[in-house]
Amino acid sequence: MTRDKLIYAFSETASPVVTVDPGESLCIETEDCFSGAIRDESRVVGPHLDIPGFNPATGPIGVRGARPGDVLCVSIESISLDRQGVTTLAPGFGVLGEQVMEATTRVTALGRSRASFLGRFRLPIRKMVGVIGVAPVGPPIDCATPGNHGGNLDTAAIGEGSRVFLPIFVREGLLALGDVHAAMADGEICGTGIETRAEVTVTISLSDEEGITCPMVETDDAWLVIQSDTTVEAAARRAASAAASFLQRRLRISFADAYMLLSLVGDHRVSQLVNPLVTVHVRIPRYVFSM
Amino acid sequence: MTRDKLIYAFSETASPVVTVDPGESLCIETEDCFSGAIRDESRVVGPHLDIPGFNPATGPIGVRGARPGDVLCVSIESISLDRQGVTTLAPGFGVLGEQVMEATTRVTALGRSRASFLGRFRLPIRKMVGVIGVAPVGPPIDCATPGNHGGNLDTAAIGEGSRVFLPIFVREGLLALGDVHAAMADGEICGTGIETRAEVTVTISLSDEEGITCPMVETDDAWLVIQSDTTVEAAARRAASAAASFLQRRLRISFADAYMLLSLVGDHRVSQLVNPLVTVHVRIPRYVFSM
Repeated sequence: MTRDKLIYAFSETASPVVTVDPGESLCIETEDCFSGAIRDESRVVGPHLDIPGFNPATGPIGVRGARPGDVLCVSIESISLDRQGVTTLAPGFGVLGEQVMEATTRVTALGRSRASFLGRFRLPIRKMVGVIGVAPVGPPIDCATPGNHGGNLDTAAIGEGSRVFLPIFVREGLLALGDVHAAMADGEICGTGIETRAEVTVTISLSDEEGITCPMVETDDAWLVIQSDTTVEAAARRAASAAASFLQRRLRISFADAYMLLSLVGDHRVSQLVNPLVTVHVRIPRYVFSM
Repeated sequence: MTRDKLIYAFSETASPVVTVDPGESLCIETEDCFSGAIRDESRVVGPHLDIPGFNPATGPIGVRGARPGDVLCVSIESISLDRQGVTTLAPGFGVLGEQVMEATTRVTALGRSRASFLGRFRLPIRKMVGVIGVAPVGPPIDCATPGNHGGNLDTAAIGEGSRVFLPIFVREGLLALGDVHAAMADGEICGTGIETRAEVTVTISLSDEEGITCPMVETDDAWLVIQSDTTVEAAARRAASAAASFLQRRLRISFADAYMLLSLVGDHRVSQLVNPLVTVHVRIPRYVFSM
């Protein structure tokens, strides 16, 4: 699926550009968060940057037979990166935006396992998908914003080998994804990771996992419950509540026991602090499910 | 040093109960966060719980020659736990406090490497020191509250093998510590971990590390910059700013480059969401300092 099929908002009125059967795999070309407009250090973020929008996602992909109330499972099989990525600063951008005097772009060469930042720091590559979501019911949600439909979750655990669970709100789901990062730390504090084009191979299926009302991710060693809101505290409260429900259902324990267990092993972590809503996740180690 | 030497606030007017030379090691007995008042499941948190205060710390310990502007380094050499710990719930307590209908205490047996929670979950023991701090200038700060003086930081990385750096505000520093947990996840969302008495062996020294204006922790693989404030966003902004300054000074790079580098490798994480101020930390991997 080529990267000319871009959306800038998740919308129930969009028509799928491709439709798959549950169980099918496909390779999705993704554009970077700047719609490819910043490819060298002479181009910086600012009002003159003439692009159709930020954080485009490739899609939407219809899933045959998917209906509201179903749960979509997207297995991220592999992520193949472009040869370079960009990290940017601009005044007002990110957690310390008021300290930024001038817009800056840094281009980073991407090797197989290392990214050469500033020509000095050979940082480990940690590939991840920044935007992944389905269409919500009601007004479209722009691709820069996260929510229960997914969207701009910027959660580092959404990498190769992870499985992303999303509640389906509309017929055929209308999945789209993009905004791959070669690396990004929890918080994404300057507003960007190493932003790059990529090819993401996924297997799309319907899941019988129950009670999925917000994005969840399963990795090798953990389940993540992901929530977004206007403040970290509000998002954390919703994530804790959803995670407690998940433990109650899966482990058949009381709310009180689930709440205490979460306090002992459920890490509350920041995904990102820089999008129109902030995103947090509770990371529950998988070992508790075999106890 | 025995656990009858307890303080309930960090205060510049307190007299040291023991004074050490820089470089000295000592074993400090600590009381649990309930001053030892909850040792079985019939005792719960509530207004009838008659205790001198929460989160007592053992101390204060004077450090001979320490002066305002110096930096204290506390190496946590080892933590020896009691045989049991408690986890509690109470209405209004923690992130989901409004969902708690009744106060509950769970006693957990502590083995060498596992804690047996609810008699079913054999959780990995992750020993940590919840309260560690020095006396501030000005009004005393109660031991339940975190700040630039340390205090109730509830940061899981403050475990065996870590080194805690604290700015010194008053003559001899007046170090105290306590509130050990056998396990606690990031966020400490119900308000408690596995709370227990312990014996903490530390080596106390003065550091020539520059620019330490808030608690910092060095572990095997990372440096943590710790900040507390009324909201996660405010604490995260201060932690990001302090971390950027640390990277600028250590790596001799510009603010812009430090800010971008942090966005790529500096994980912004929650320490706790349940104390009178919330605490966050930026976790900077140590490998960047050898690049």
